[in-house]
Amino acid sequence: MAVGLTVPSTIYPVAGVRLSAVAAGIRYTDRDDLVVMEIASGASCAAVFTRNAFCAAPVIVARQHLQDTSPRYLLINSGNANAGTGKQGLDDCLGCTEILAAAADCRREEILPFSTGVIGQSLPVEAFRKAIPHALEQLDEAGWAQAAAAIMTTDTLPKLASCQLQLEGETVHITGMAKGSGMIRPDMATMLAYIATDASIDQAILDQCLRQAVDRSFNLITVDGDTSTNDACVAIATAQTGVNISNLDNETGKQFANALTRICQELAQAIVRDGEGATKFITIDVSGGADESECRQVADAVAHSPLVKTAFFASDPNWGRILAAVGRSGIADLDVSKIDIYLGDVCIVYGGNPAQDYNEEKGQQVMSAEDITVRVELGRGNASLTMWTCDLSYDYVRINAEYRT
Amino acid sequence: MAVGLTVPSTIYPVAGVRLSAVAAGIRYTDRDDLVVMEIASGASCAAVFTRNAFCAAPVIVARQHLQDTSPRYLLINSGNANAGTGKQGLDDCLGCTEILAAAADCRREEILPFSTGVIGQSLPVEAFRKAIPHALEQLDEAGWAQAAAAIMTTDTLPKLASCQLQLEGETVHITGMAKGSGMIRPDMATMLAYIATDASIDQAILDQCLRQAVDRSFNLITVDGDTSTNDACVAIATAQTGVNISNLDNETGKQFANALTRICQELAQAIVRDGEGATKFITIDVSGGADESECRQVADAVAHSPLVKTAFFASDPNWGRILAAVGRSGIADLDVSKIDIYLGDVCIVYGGNPAQDYNEEKGQQVMSAEDITVRVELGRGNASLTMWTCDLSYDYVRINAEYRT
Repeated sequence: MAVGLTVPSTIYPVAGVRLSAVAAGIRYTDRDDLVVMEIASGASCAAVFTRNAFCAAPVIVARQHLQDTSPRYLLINSGNANAGTGKQGLDDCLGCTEILAAAADCRREEILPFSTGVIGQSLPVEAFRKAIPHALEQLDEAGWAQAAAAIMTTDTLPKLASCQLQLEGETVHITGMAKGSGMIRPDMATMLAYIATDASIDQAILDQCLRQAVDRSFNLITVDGDTSTNDACVAIATAQTGVNISNLDNETGKQFANALTRICQELAQAIVRDGEGATKFITIDVSGGADESECRQVADAVAHSPLVKTAFFASDPNWGRILAAVGRSGIADLDVSKIDIYLGDVCIVYGGNPAQDYNEEKGQQVMSAEDITVRVELGRGNASLTMWTCDLSYDYVRINAEYRT
Repeated sequence: MAVGLTVPSTIYPVAGVRLSAVAAGIRYTDRDDLVVMEIASGASCAAVFTRNAFCAAPVIVARQHLQDTSPRYLLINSGNANAGTGKQGLDDCLGCTEILAAAADCRREEILPFSTGVIGQSLPVEAFRKAIPHALEQLDEAGWAQAAAAIMTTDTLPKLASCQLQLEGETVHITGMAKGSGMIRPDMATMLAYIATDASIDQAILDQCLRQAVDRSFNLITVDGDTSTNDACVAIATAQTGVNISNLDNETGKQFANALTRICQELAQAIVRDGEGATKFITIDVSGGADESECRQVADAVAHSPLVKTAFFASDPNWGRILAAVGRSGIADLDVSKIDIYLGDVCIVYGGNPAQDYNEEKGQQVMSAEDITVRVELGRGNASLTMWTCDLSYDYVRINAEYRT
């Protein structure tokens, strides 16, 4: 189902990070659903989390642990979100981290827990107890692909991105994985995503670099407008190469920050391409705004409109719905006579009026593709913003009507 | 498809209002699609319109005409929204009002035009020219039901509400009709709705009374979160009885205002019950808010969540999605430990924790009904707000993927 999404053929291991995935039987009976990620001592780690007030137990615990110390292990399960589970959920989450801490001989605070799956069901701690020793035996630097598959829920493909870059004469690697397909909306933290590099980066700089990257990637996607209770994105710098990123404004820092943003964008776009029921990948370019925030308002209205999304599903150039979404986006004093709208390269609205040389055939041609760009020019200033989303299909309804059955 | 919606058996005519509906062939070939509503001289009229910046040509014209004078005729077509049609759309709209003005021997400014249907197609003025004389011949005080059917687009049933009340020893009537099924979202003006009374009310008081009523009815519903380019709601007071509403704060004024609000709520709820693809009618009660606006924020997040809406479609008590929507509604400092959530009478979350005595069977029983109430108690204050919405089904996708074909 995923739109133009393939698993990258080369995934570079990152020295200092080993991963394993095992079938713990947390919800699924026939697949891996538990991942352990080991981080070498001396690494730094930064993370952003969901802003959903009903955040999951592992989000609460991971946030606390991260304030306390630098993590040595990430413990990630799919199939159960451990959200909406109240005090019991917190106890269960702490219990799982204690099991891993005992088995790996570290402190509980050195473990960051993450969960994704059904909300409101108890976490089966015993399943963790049985599976964790096995997971520790299998840790491997080459474990990224298997781990990316194990954290999937309604995803149809694992999401991975990897690059190497030359910095100060040395080779540095960045590799990341993500999961997510539904309950996806931007402007908050993000989905589950884990990115590691073998560069050396202070925690404060890594944090700044991650937030920049997330703002230009995960926070610019939406599938259905629903922000998850469990979103988290983690960046790890293992310091296993001699390259030290100490300043994001110099040449080395900029190169690294750009590479991290690209990796995050690849993962974010992979989430949209594998959005629940997606048959189209839609890029929404808004330019000519007075500031970035009003560009986001317009992009947001178009990206969340169920009418726009069903028209894309039908490959129907029903541009009136795009125009209606722009019109209701809530910008004060929007002068429609300055607005141009394009479907791909085809102008559909020029100066607020239907474009003279537009015809249905031209629109139809753009809409038939799997990848489609909508461009809105507001004529109010120089700010711009790009968001990515997918269409709304029968399968989105089917997947979410049948999710728990 | 409509959920528990029936056409009222008694529709009281309103003295001073005559209606007719004819088949003009504007888009449909086999049904009425043009309505003329004649208003007796001496009536007052108030209206609210969409706040969509890309509002339709008839909205622009009707707004202007209403500032100019009190209307004698409403001219309403379905099948074509005359929105996104630029200058040509304005010319076409004015042309149609001129045709009616000539045939009815009044000024163009005494006509309010309204359109609903596909966005971005030219209005066939010639179809109006042929049909209008015929429509004028058929004007009838008993024409409400036929008119309500003629303004439908994806609606499956006409929407009517009617009541009589005794005020100061006289009988006063209020009758209204509305259309709308998709591109429905609150917090703006509303859909096409026309309400008439034979009471006598000054324009300023009628305007105030209408805005109050719309705020408590049409502005509290959503089907898909998309605000139309053509929404309008019109109230007409024909002054054909001796009852004069001159003050909304005295007993008579309050009785009338309450009755008008009830009529608007009946019509608004009818729109939701006939929402595109709807199989469930969902009432969202939010109480315990610090103010009404934060109650709306919470209700809005729940009502627009595609995940909540697909769970309702599946009759699945997946309450975690309701909790997640409340959590992402954006209220600052939301303390989840004070939140209770109910599905019907069944408590699912108490003090932010899963309710002790909740079980899936209880939730399933509530979800099996067609009419379902979600109640969220925020524990922050005394404000409350109720919104109405419907579920998200395969048929919503089908209707909107096939709309233009």
